[in-house]
Order: sequence, then C-alpha cells, then structure tokens
Amino acid sequence: MPEVHRKLQPIPFTDISFQDDFWSPRIKVNRDVTIPHIYDQCQATGRISAFTLDFQRSLPAPIVLIFGDSDIAKWVEAASFSLADFPDENLQAKVDDVIEKIIHAQQPDGYLNTHFIKGDPAMRWKNLRDWHEMYCAGHLIEAAVAHFHATGSHVMLDALTRYADHIDATFGPEPGKRPGYCGHPEIELALVKLYHATNNPRYLQMATYMVEERGAQPHYYDWEARQRGDDPAKYWAKTYDYCQAHLPVREQTKVVGHAVRAMYLLSAVADLAHEKNDLSLLVTCQRLWENLVSKRMYLTGAIGPSAHNEGFTQDYDLPDETAYAETCATIGVMMWNHRLLQFNGESKYADVIERALYNGFLSSISLTGDQFFYENPLASFGENRRQTWFDCPCCPPNIARTFASLGQYFYSSNADGVWVHQFAQGTAHFDLGGVPIQLRQQTDYPWNGNVRIEIGVDRVTEFGVHIRVPGWCRQWSVKINNLQLDIQPDANGYLVINRDWSPGDCIFYAMEMPIELTWANPAVRALQGRVAFQRGPLVYCLEAADHQDIPLETIALDGRSLTPDVFEAVHEPNLLGGLTIIQGYALALAQEDGADRLYQNAIPKGKKIKITALPYYAWANRNPGAMRVWLPVY
Amino acid sequence: MPEVHRKLQPIPFTDISFQDDFWSPRIKVNRDVTIPHIYDQCQATGRISAFTLDFQRSLPAPIVLIFGDSDIAKWVEAASFSLADFPDENLQAKVDDVIEKIIHAQQPDGYLNTHFIKGDPAMRWKNLRDWHEMYCAGHLIEAAVAHFHATGSHVMLDALTRYADHIDATFGPEPGKRPGYCGHPEIELALVKLYHATNNPRYLQMATYMVEERGAQPHYYDWEARQRGDDPAKYWAKTYDYCQAHLPVREQTKVVGHAVRAMYLLSAVADLAHEKNDLSLLVTCQRLWENLVSKRMYLTGAIGPSAHNEGFTQDYDLPDETAYAETCATIGVMMWNHRLLQFNGESKYADVIERALYNGFLSSISLTGDQFFYENPLASFGENRRQTWFDCPCCPPNIARTFASLGQYFYSSNADGVWVHQFAQGTAHFDLGGVPIQLRQQTDYPWNGNVRIEIGVDRVTEFGVHIRVPGWCRQWSVKINNLQLDIQPDANGYLVINRDWSPGDCIFYAMEMPIELTWANPAVRALQGRVAFQRGPLVYCLEAADHQDIPLETIALDGRSLTPDVFEAVHEPNLLGGLTIIQGYALALAQEDGADRLYQNAIPKGKKIKITALPYYAWANRNPGAMRVWLPVY
Repeated sequence: MPEVHRKLQPIPFTDISFQDDFWSPRIKVNRDVTIPHIYDQCQATGRISAFTLDFQRSLPAPIVLIFGDSDIAKWVEAASFSLADFPDENLQAKVDDVIEKIIHAQQPDGYLNTHFIKGDPAMRWKNLRDWHEMYCAGHLIEAAVAHFHATGSHVMLDALTRYADHIDATFGPEPGKRPGYCGHPEIELALVKLYHATNNPRYLQMATYMVEERGAQPHYYDWEARQRGDDPAKYWAKTYDYCQAHLPVREQTKVVGHAVRAMYLLSAVADLAHEKNDLSLLVTCQRLWENLVSKRMYLTGAIGPSAHNEGFTQDYDLPDETAYAETCATIGVMMWNHRLLQFNGESKYADVIERALYNGFLSSISLTGDQFFYENPLASFGENRRQTWFDCPCCPPNIARTFASLGQYFYSSNADGVWVHQFAQGTAHFDLGGVPIQLRQQTDYPWNGNVRIEIGVDRVTEFGVHIRVPGWCRQWSVKINNLQLDIQPDANGYLVINRDWSPGDCIFYAMEMPIELTWANPAVRALQGRVAFQRGPLVYCLEAADHQDIPLETIALDGRSLTPDVFEAVHEPNLLGGLTIIQGYALALAQEDGADRLYQNAIPKGKKIKITALPYYAWANRNPGAMRVWLPVY
Repeated sequence: MPEVHRKLQPIPFTDISFQDDFWSPRIKVNRDVTIPHIYDQCQATGRISAFTLDFQRSLPAPIVLIFGDSDIAKWVEAASFSLADFPDENLQAKVDDVIEKIIHAQQPDGYLNTHFIKGDPAMRWKNLRDWHEMYCAGHLIEAAVAHFHATGSHVMLDALTRYADHIDATFGPEPGKRPGYCGHPEIELALVKLYHATNNPRYLQMATYMVEERGAQPHYYDWEARQRGDDPAKYWAKTYDYCQAHLPVREQTKVVGHAVRAMYLLSAVADLAHEKNDLSLLVTCQRLWENLVSKRMYLTGAIGPSAHNEGFTQDYDLPDETAYAETCATIGVMMWNHRLLQFNGESKYADVIERALYNGFLSSISLTGDQFFYENPLASFGENRRQTWFDCPCCPPNIARTFASLGQYFYSSNADGVWVHQFAQGTAHFDLGGVPIQLRQQTDYPWNGNVRIEIGVDRVTEFGVHIRVPGWCRQWSVKINNLQLDIQPDANGYLVINRDWSPGDCIFYAMEMPIELTWANPAVRALQGRVAFQRGPLVYCLEAADHQDIPLETIALDGRSLTPDVFEAVHEPNLLGGLTIIQGYALALAQEDGADRLYQNAIPKGKKIKITALPYYAWANRNPGAMRVWLPVY
C-alpha cells in the first residue's frame, strides 16, 4: 500500500514572526483596524445579539442572515489567532463575551444555530442543501479549536463538541440517522481540526462519512426535498454541480459550481487523504487541481468567473472585467494548496499560494484595513470600490483570519529539515528532534529577490534546508556564507541544501526578478491579443489615477516593440505604503483619422504615451477610476 | 419655417420585382415555406383559435402569450404583402379565414385583444407599461392596412378603425380620457399608416399625442401603477429607459432600453417629423441616430448587446459572443433608417439599411426558410442553431413581412427623378409626372459591384438618376452607354446624373469590391486587437465547418502580414446557394511550448493554416459548430 501521508508539517503561525515592511504593517492593521471593525459591524447587524435569542426575524434591522452565525464565528477564530500572537486584554474580553453569548444560545440537546432555534425552529435540519446549518457549525468548530489553541480554555471547545455530538447523533450511516451532508462544505475540514484538538476519532469518522456520502445515489437532497414537499427537480441552482454533490467526489473530473464550496470541500478531501492514507482521495485532488490551474484560474490566483453561481463555468472562461473572483474563494485556493503542499513539498502548490496571496487575496482589502472587495475583477471601468461591509459579509472575517494566521503558509518542517516556501523578512522557530532551530530571513521581497537566510543553531546540526524556486523565477544563485553553490532544484522544485549547519551560517539566495510579459493560453478567448505585466510574485495593473488624461481602455501596448526590457521597475517608497511600479511607453489609441466612428478599414492610430503600472493588490486605494490588468496589443 | 418634409418617396415594393439569384430565391422561400410555416405554428400554438375566445388560459397548451395577437397580425401583414405581389388562392383563403376570426373577436365597443377579452377582462387598459395592448393593436392595424392595400377589401380595415376609435375614446388629452401610451411603441407608426389608408387626420393626431405625451411628468406609468395598487418604484425593469419613457422624446440624448421599442418609437418620430413638418423631431432622430451608429451598433447592423433588457447598455459595449442583437431590432433599424432616408436622400441611412439587411437581418433565417435566430451573436462557441419557433415568436413573422415587402428599401423617386439606394437585379417601375418609367438593374451584387442600369422610357425624358456610392466603396466608375462620366457623389453621397434619357440608355456603374479588414473603435473593449473581414456590403465570419481539425477560437490573423491583399475572394456557386468566400492563411495558436498551461511569458506560437471565411448571413446552415466574426491578431 502506497504511503500517502503528508511528509511535511507546516510550522504553526505562532512560531513565525514577520519583521518586514510588507506583511507586518498589514498584520498590524488587521489587529488594530480590521478585527475591531468586523466586531463593530457584527454587533451593528445583530450577529452577536442573535445569540441572546431575543431578536425578531421580522424586523428589518438587525439583519441576521441565515448564516449569520458563521460570520461572528470567523471573527472569533480571527481574534483567537491574533491573541495567540499578540495578547490584548480588550480583544480578549470581547472574545470571552461573544463566546459566552454563543454558549448561552446552545440548546439542551447541543444544537446551536440562532436562525433555526429562534427564527424557524420547524425547519431545523430540513434543508441541508441550501440552509448552511452544518456550514455554520463548521465555522463555530473552527473558532472553538482556534480559541482553545490560543487560550487553552476548553469552554467553547466543549460546547462545540456537544454540538458535533448532536450532529453525529442525527446524521450518519447508522440506523435511525439520516445520511445527510451540508450543501456548503466546511464542517468536514472543521471536524478534522476538532479530531486533532480532542483526539476523538469519532469526529474524523464524521468528516469521512460526509465526504464519502456526498453525491451518492439515491441522493440525499432529492429525498430531503421530497420530505419537505418540494420537487427536487425544481432546485433553484438546477444542478448539484453547484454544491459539488453531483457525483461522488472520486468521480469528479472538473472543479465545478460555487467556488468557495469547491475549495472547502477539497481542503477536507486533502485532509482525509492524509488522515486515512487514501491515495484515491489524493489522486482526486491532483486531478481537480490540474483542471483548476490549467484551465480555470485567474492570473491573480482568484477563481470562479461567474456571479450567477459565484463559481465556475467552462474551461478557459476567464473574462477580466466581469470576473467574480470572490475573495473567500481565493482564500480557499490558499487553504487547499496549503494542504496539498504538505504531502510531498511540491513547489507548484506553493506557487499557487504565492500567486493567490500577493494578488487575488491581497487586493481584497484596502490599505486602511476597513474596506473590502467581495469580487476581485481584473479590470474595472466603473466606480468599483471596496465596501465597509456587505449584506452577505463572509469575506471580511475570512480576510481577517487569514492575516491573523498568515505565517502558516511560509514554512514547513519534518524530521529531516525545513522548507522555505515563501519569502518575507522575519523569523521561524522549529524543532528538529528536540533541537530548537531558528531561521531568520532578511529580504525586501517582493520588491526584489534577494533573500538572506541565517541559520540559528546553538551548535553544529545536520539537516536539510529546502528553498523554493518560484515558478516565475528563471535565474537564481545561492551562496552559503561566501561559497557559491552549483545546485539545481530537485524534482519538487526546491533547492535542497543538506549539511552540518554551524551557528551564524547564512544562505544568500538571489532570485532575479525582471519584468515579465504574460500571455494567456490562446484558448482563453477573453484574453486573446492581451498581455499582462508581472514581476516576481506580483501581477500588475494600470490604474486611471496614474493616467488621468487618457481613457484607460484606449491604452495598448505596442506590438512592434513588445519586450520586457523596454519597461523599467522603479521603487516608490512613498506611494501607497511603498511599492515598485513599472514604467514605460505604450500607445493611446484613437481611430486612425480621429473620427468618432465605430468601424473603419484601418488599424487604430497609437500616440506614444508614458504609462505606469502598479501592483494589482494596491489598486482602488486612490481616487475612483478604471483599472486593467490585461492590456491589448496593437 | 424650415421645410422638413420628406423630399423622396419610396417606390412601393409592389412596383419592384427581383430577377436575381440572391433575393429572388429568398423571397420565394419566404412565400413557399416561411409564411405557411408561421401560419402552422400560430395555429398549433393557439394564436389563431384564440380569436374564437373559447381558449382556457389555465391550459398549458395552446400557449397564448399576452401579445399573441401581434404574432398572427404580423403574419396577416406578411401574407397580405405577399398576395399583393403574388396572388395565391390558398394563401388568400387562409388570410380571409384568419381575418374573419379576428373580426369575430371584436367586442361591441370596438375592443379587440384576445388576452384581455377572455383571459383577464378586469385588467383591460390597466397596465399600458407592461402589457402590450396597444402594441397588439398597432400590429393589427398594420395588418389591416396591408390587407386593404393588397386586396382593396375594407373588412379588416373597418374593424381596426373601430378599434382605433375605441382607443381614441379611452386615451388622449381631452377631459374624461386617460393620458396613456404603450410601453412597447408600435401603435404610433401604425396610426400614421391608418391615417394614410383612411385619410382621417384623427389617427395622425392620436399618434402625435402618444409620442408627445411619452415621458411627460407627472408620469402616466406612475399614476397607472398606483391605480393598480402597485408601487411604481417597484417597476421590474427599474427605469423607464427600458421603454424610452424616461424623458420626453425631444430630450433623449442616447438610444436606450429595449432595442425593438426604441426603433419602433423612432420610426414613428421620423414619420411625425415629416407629417407635422417638425424639425425638432427630425433633429431628435438625427441626434439618436449619431449615438446609435457611432457607439451602439454591431458591424452587422444589429443592435442591443444585452439579453437582460433585450437592448442597450453603455456606449461602446459591443461584445461579440454574448451579443443579443435581436432580429426584430435589426428590422427596426431598417424601418427607422428607411424613414430617415426619404427626407433628403442621404446615403448614410441607406448604408445602415444595407449593413443590417445583408448581415444582421439575413442571418436570422435559414436557407430553408423554416428556422430562425432570435438572437444574432457575432461569435458562437456552443451549439447555437436556428429554431423552428419560440415561446415568444415575434421574430419569425417580422422576418416574413420584411421579405414580403423587401423591394421598398431599394428605390425612391420624386418629381425630379429616381434614387437607386440598393443594388439587385430586377425592375423598378415608377411614374414621373404621369410618364411611366422603368429601371432595369443587371448585376451579380453582392458578389461583385458591377451594375448595369437600363433606363426604360418610351421617349426622351429628362430626369435625374441618383445612384448611391456605398460607404464601403472607395473606387468606382460610371459610364453612360460608352461615355465615361467624370462625376463625384453629391453631398448626400449619391452620383447624380441629370439628363435627357433616351430609350435603351444604359448606365454602367462599377464599384470596386476588394476584401477589407475592419477594426473597431478602440473604445470597444470587447473588440480590441481584433479584425473582421468585409467585402462589399457583407460581413464575413469563420465557421467550424470549414476548419474541422482546428478549434475555431485558436485561429488568429498574423499581425506581421496583415493586409487585405494576402486574402482572396473565390466564388463558390454550389456552396450554400452560391456565395463568395474569402480564403487565405492565418495562424492556429498554441502555447509556445505546447504545454497545456494557462499563462506563460511568451507569445503563443502560431502554425500557418489555410482559412475560409464565408458571409456571416450564411452561417449555421451546415453541421453545428463554432462561428466567429472578429478574429484576434497575433
């Protein structure tokens, strides 16, 4: 039987610290602004007081959506992550208060969902397909596990254990239980966490059952609909693709449906491949990953082009301007790839994480930390701006919990050594057979590719340091102390340096980071004849703020002189928190004879103009105006 | 006071005959197949039996839509037009039978709408905004006028006169009447026709009032909604732009909303500019025409990109693949431009008619005459095919009536002479101060631009022949008999030849018709970096049927050698009824290294392949497959 288990373990975010100018300020803003802001919004919209169970559903305010519990759960998780790194009495008190309210709402049988306790008790567990009950439970479980790890307190964990036990008593393969699973996957990955937090294998079994039963015939959602007196054929989303329940997961060949659901489900599938040592589940992930990455992912790492189903459509359907590209789905991309990365340390998964992290994810929040994008299009010609909140506010707390636990994505370790997946100035602590080791990165990443890694050991210690060669990187060099190494990346895409490390040893890793011009696969019809700028991990865009006299849509690159070396990277320390822009010349197009004519038998005339591209993540932090990643070539 | 009246009069279609290989076969198919097919479909779907008033609204079949009366009305109009040119006892009997049924349904007060007589009597005239009552009346009036002209019979005209009188008694500015007008314009232009058929100026007054009242405040649709107990703010279409009632027509600056409604309204506005000698209405038409033609019209003459409102969105929003481009709207373009053309004989209006006629209109029907497109996208990558019928079948009878009266678009005359707007082999008869004159065109248009026009006079007669120089034509020559003329088009874009014409005089007009490459205005984001083929009046497309081994979306033109002279026009007499194709070389794109990768830092590699373009109108007459007008350039 093949060995499927993960060979690597992520170094927990609590053992990572950032001491850089890129992530540290964002994490501080997350702590100082975003987490308090989300608390205030949850309070103002009744998401906290809902747990007192004295709200009126008929009142227009506070608005408590059917999955309102999940929003505050993600806030508790984010706050707990933050507390684990940065103790804060005020935040701790708020968390304690919210948890007290949550526990107060729990019913004697363990059930815990404010909407169905108070708003619609007769409908409890009647519509797993649409009503997010287990989804909310999953987020509460994740919050409880995070709170337990951060504080050592069992109080929320115990409550959620009782809720999980209630769900276990209601659903499952055993006689008298219903073979149900949630339309919005989430609880599956949460139950794996609960299993590890409690060491109770029952929760792993629950997660396994929910993944295995998904898409089986006779279909639970058909049965459940008939029980409600509904015609299953009248399902509003028309097909169970929407919730990845159209087929058993092992038979699925494409990533389909609602993009967040797909990523959460596949995160659990990856977890179970490891936990159960199940190659068929890992192969399923690999197959769907290939489909995602080769045919269904935006350049920014975002996924899901369609607003209609908040998700996937067809292969190669990646329009820029109408991209839905939900923030939560991009976070899901990171979650899933993080799990896949730990199996064998293949750099392709870390590449996807990096792409999503620096682009599709980071674009979702303003530099001020209190405004958010739900959708992250790759072009905008209206007045598209980040919002302070949403009627469906799943994204803001998802962003907050990601920032608060960001370090988890950067390093892994095992008994043989350490993996440097991502680059940022700061420190990682890990333990090698009982020997504490530190890695200290010094770098200005992502502005240049020079990374100094100091090995912090107390005495000479042998282990391997694995350093990722990013997919975008074509030239690099490595020195140890003053010794140039002549090594190539291994089959997994990492430079592997196995040696006896002495205190003070330094690795000098230099990745060349030129400006790159990127073309999409010609099968992507929406991007034909278009080019995007990338530099290192960053996708760039043009923004109206830098091109005030020229309609942004008329700016094209000059196909007669289209090589990266006609553009220049310039660091601007005072612009939008400090960033490297790309400058050069392009064409402002107009009809050849200047006439305001729709069609003519001549290629539009281009006037040479200077252009500035800035990192995509930084757009929409100045005056409202157009933005475009993919530029036409004339 | 400026003279606004039309200087030209169209030569009626009954005085035009086609003797060509292009239109004649289509008109014959319209007569032999399309008109009988639509009758059968109207019968099968209860649109005829509805007039017996014994249908049950609750039965799922026959489906009688709220505007079902208009479909059979357009059939009566089409059949009447056809009978005027081609007597046919069988068709005449069907028309008589349908008219008898229609008249039978008329109520004692003159009212005549099967849905509101039988299905929902309490709602009669309660929702002019949404329910198409006057729209249906308008089409019945147009049918009655056509039937009267074709047969001399007053029977339907009298019935519809009574219905118009009933409407006149119900709506209008006078005390006790309601200031209402229809959400779907149509009756306005029909009332102008009724005025001419009856010589009763009351109907012109009705049309004038309906156009003048449209968009006035306080708004009739607000009042009407409140009368029904509805909140006007909850209008499903959100804004009265949808029905061009957001502002008085003279204050409208862009063509907006539902595209068919816009064209029908503006056709009436053009009619009234003439009838009332009202410059402000003509100026309104000119302003909206500029907006349409310079910012909102597809290369095919189709209009209205959005399925959402079946209409307009923003300037320069002209996506190819998702183009709604409804057939009825393209017909509306022809109707409106035909009316504008008669004011001063400006060729730009005939250019638009030609563009719409040969492309957006002609694509809407199969060569067999029994399958129809409702939407006419400029690219298709699915299995998009024409249908035999639609739940909302407004387009098929609109196509039929257009073919049956096609000749009207080709010539105009006045006391000074004749205008040749369009080119087709055949004969036009007109009358110049009592002197009967014939023009006989000999030509293979649109396959080449050589047109021989023989002047049929009995004796020497002086008049002007105005021959259009199409917008697409850049080189031409004219001879009379053997004499080369050295003339330029006049300010209206016509070659004007004033002389004493002798029997047998011939004009030899030769328009050069090279292959042209067309670029869209760079402000059209969806078409940036793309090129379309045109030749003469025809827009070309690539179709999968001619490129079976190559995914059509990967075919690009080679930007390094992109001139029209590398392509060749080849006439194929046996292909799809005979047509001229364009052949040449292009690139089949693939990722540079052949990998199935979404993004890379290299321009896709192009393999040289042979391509065939065929006229857009002819697509989807072979095996289902992709089609594309606008090709990327690499």
